[in-house]
Amino acid sequence: MTTLYEATLAAITPVDEQARAAAEAHQLQLTKPAGALGELETLGNQLAAIARTCPPPVPEAGLVCVFAGDHGVQAQGVSPWPQEVTRQMAANIAAGGAGVNVIARAAGAAVRIVDVGMLQAVDGVRDERLAAGTQDLSQGPAMTREQALAAVEVGISTAQQAVRDGFDVLVPGEVGIGNTTPAAALTSVFTGLDPELTTGRGAGAPDPMLAHKVATIRRGIEVNRAVAGDPIGALAAVGGFEHAAVVGLLLGAAEQRVPVVLDGAIACAAALVAVALCPAVQGYLVAGHEGAEPGIRRACEQLGLRPVLSLGLRLGEGTGGALALPVVATAARVLGEMATFASAGVTEEHA
Amino acid sequence: MTTLYEATLAAITPVDEQARAAAEAHQLQLTKPAGALGELETLGNQLAAIARTCPPPVPEAGLVCVFAGDHGVQAQGVSPWPQEVTRQMAANIAAGGAGVNVIARAAGAAVRIVDVGMLQAVDGVRDERLAAGTQDLSQGPAMTREQALAAVEVGISTAQQAVRDGFDVLVPGEVGIGNTTPAAALTSVFTGLDPELTTGRGAGAPDPMLAHKVATIRRGIEVNRAVAGDPIGALAAVGGFEHAAVVGLLLGAAEQRVPVVLDGAIACAAALVAVALCPAVQGYLVAGHEGAEPGIRRACEQLGLRPVLSLGLRLGEGTGGALALPVVATAARVLGEMATFASAGVTEEHA
Repeated sequence: MTTLYEATLAAITPVDEQARAAAEAHQLQLTKPAGALGELETLGNQLAAIARTCPPPVPEAGLVCVFAGDHGVQAQGVSPWPQEVTRQMAANIAAGGAGVNVIARAAGAAVRIVDVGMLQAVDGVRDERLAAGTQDLSQGPAMTREQALAAVEVGISTAQQAVRDGFDVLVPGEVGIGNTTPAAALTSVFTGLDPELTTGRGAGAPDPMLAHKVATIRRGIEVNRAVAGDPIGALAAVGGFEHAAVVGLLLGAAEQRVPVVLDGAIACAAALVAVALCPAVQGYLVAGHEGAEPGIRRACEQLGLRPVLSLGLRLGEGTGGALALPVVATAARVLGEMATFASAGVTEEHA
Repeated sequence: MTTLYEATLAAITPVDEQARAAAEAHQLQLTKPAGALGELETLGNQLAAIARTCPPPVPEAGLVCVFAGDHGVQAQGVSPWPQEVTRQMAANIAAGGAGVNVIARAAGAAVRIVDVGMLQAVDGVRDERLAAGTQDLSQGPAMTREQALAAVEVGISTAQQAVRDGFDVLVPGEVGIGNTTPAAALTSVFTGLDPELTTGRGAGAPDPMLAHKVATIRRGIEVNRAVAGDPIGALAAVGGFEHAAVVGLLLGAAEQRVPVVLDGAIACAAALVAVALCPAVQGYLVAGHEGAEPGIRRACEQLGLRPVLSLGLRLGEGTGGALALPVVATAARVLGEMATFASAGVTEEHA
């Protein structure tokens, strides 16, 4: 029997390079010097490739999908925040008071939150719990393969339901005290870089905690023999439930042919996993924000993505992705709404 | 008799540092690690200082004020585009088809265009013409002091009218073939940097044209003995009508206590002039976008501004400022809408 995971992977097709080329050609007809809208042009051309038509539809119905989970590795003391904050912040997001709610609202986007493995369930948060937190990745696998695949499938279903509900651009979000530790571990596995180069302070680890976090990640990768050649195995070994759910969200978005605007370290780590599983996913990804976690830049470099924003955000939740949504929508509108040299009667450049 | 220019300068008051301090304190109560929203926090705090209250009102009614002019220095061949393009693009903006129209529309902002000195008037563009283009700044003053002051007053009136009409955040825009030449000249005069460090390719000058442009600017500064100690004299000598109008817009916005989101090289050069005339103007300025022109970075450094976006735009018109408007509005909403640790029942950090 084919699983949802297998069926989704099989159904993903690359973005349309002909539509991208048509968009590139159309940019040259718009009333501006060639290339004068910089990254906005690149982004618009990508949206055409994703939508398979030029001009692309304007992605204006955004949805931030926040996945919540807890992390056994917090037993090692990798975050200065107590784990109860995961549930408190999940409740805050469900109630509409968190940073991601405000930023999404400002962008005209909605927020949904799904519990994929917090220590305890929270009222008002959709319950798709796979366990009461992961195991400590520094001692053995954080999840079983089956758990990791189940979390991936929650992400796929979330993407499919979002598109059925009319959303046309997705932002992966997450909440989970300690979750930049598995993110850095995954980023190291999939880039081949030492954890020292992929690990940051998360929600505020001071110097000694940061050094301990790096050592913990290094040990986790070694103990589990996590390798990029077995993406689901690595995800299960050193990832987290919300990381796995984001992997699924990216796969589902690519299968549904909608753009995804990545947020920070967790989303970028998940993107490395998703692209390892299916390289065609890359074409659907936009990097929304380059935050403080060094893993973001490392992942984006490997994925060939240039972050839209760089405003020093380090909150997670999907905030950086949501903040980039207006720029993404604007990029599509440029292709659809700007006058051409011919239509506006403007003389073209002569050197 | 007191002129509008003199009255406006006298009426400008600094932003409110007590309101900024209140905003900084409030940020620490919001449900996020301290400083986790990065530049969005700095920006929100500035909006509180400008509005003199925390949380600040959300600046959602944006207006891009585009000033159009022509430049005698184009006789030296400083741009690859013919001067008729100034009028054609002014007509395109008036008709709603230019890049700035699309980007402003996406941000929910309006666009107004004012002719302060094109070679010929254009139907549909508000006529506040002071001359048929400036004189060649490489041979003598581009404008008389009286012309420069009259253009500044057009800018002041435009800002005052905008606020009367209910707009609460302004973006200066401009159109004028050749206008990055006076912008670089002004930036050099007010930063003390050689034109080689402030001059870029504008709308596409190739290498030999760029070298000639630098030499032309250097000659203009020398011929006119333009110095920062006489801001209006320097503006008249090596500026342009639209540059002077933007200076006025910034003075008027500060006097009216509304934030201004700067666009590229012309707006940043004008900001140097405005702050030289009245240092308190600085507090009202947000740098919207760091574009390709090197003068932008030089001006922002001197003004202590960190651009919100850096997307490689080099179109001018106000596009970079307009594109930053959603981020500016979001920064205000964070202060007004996010839950606090107390209101959401979230535990604070413990190290």
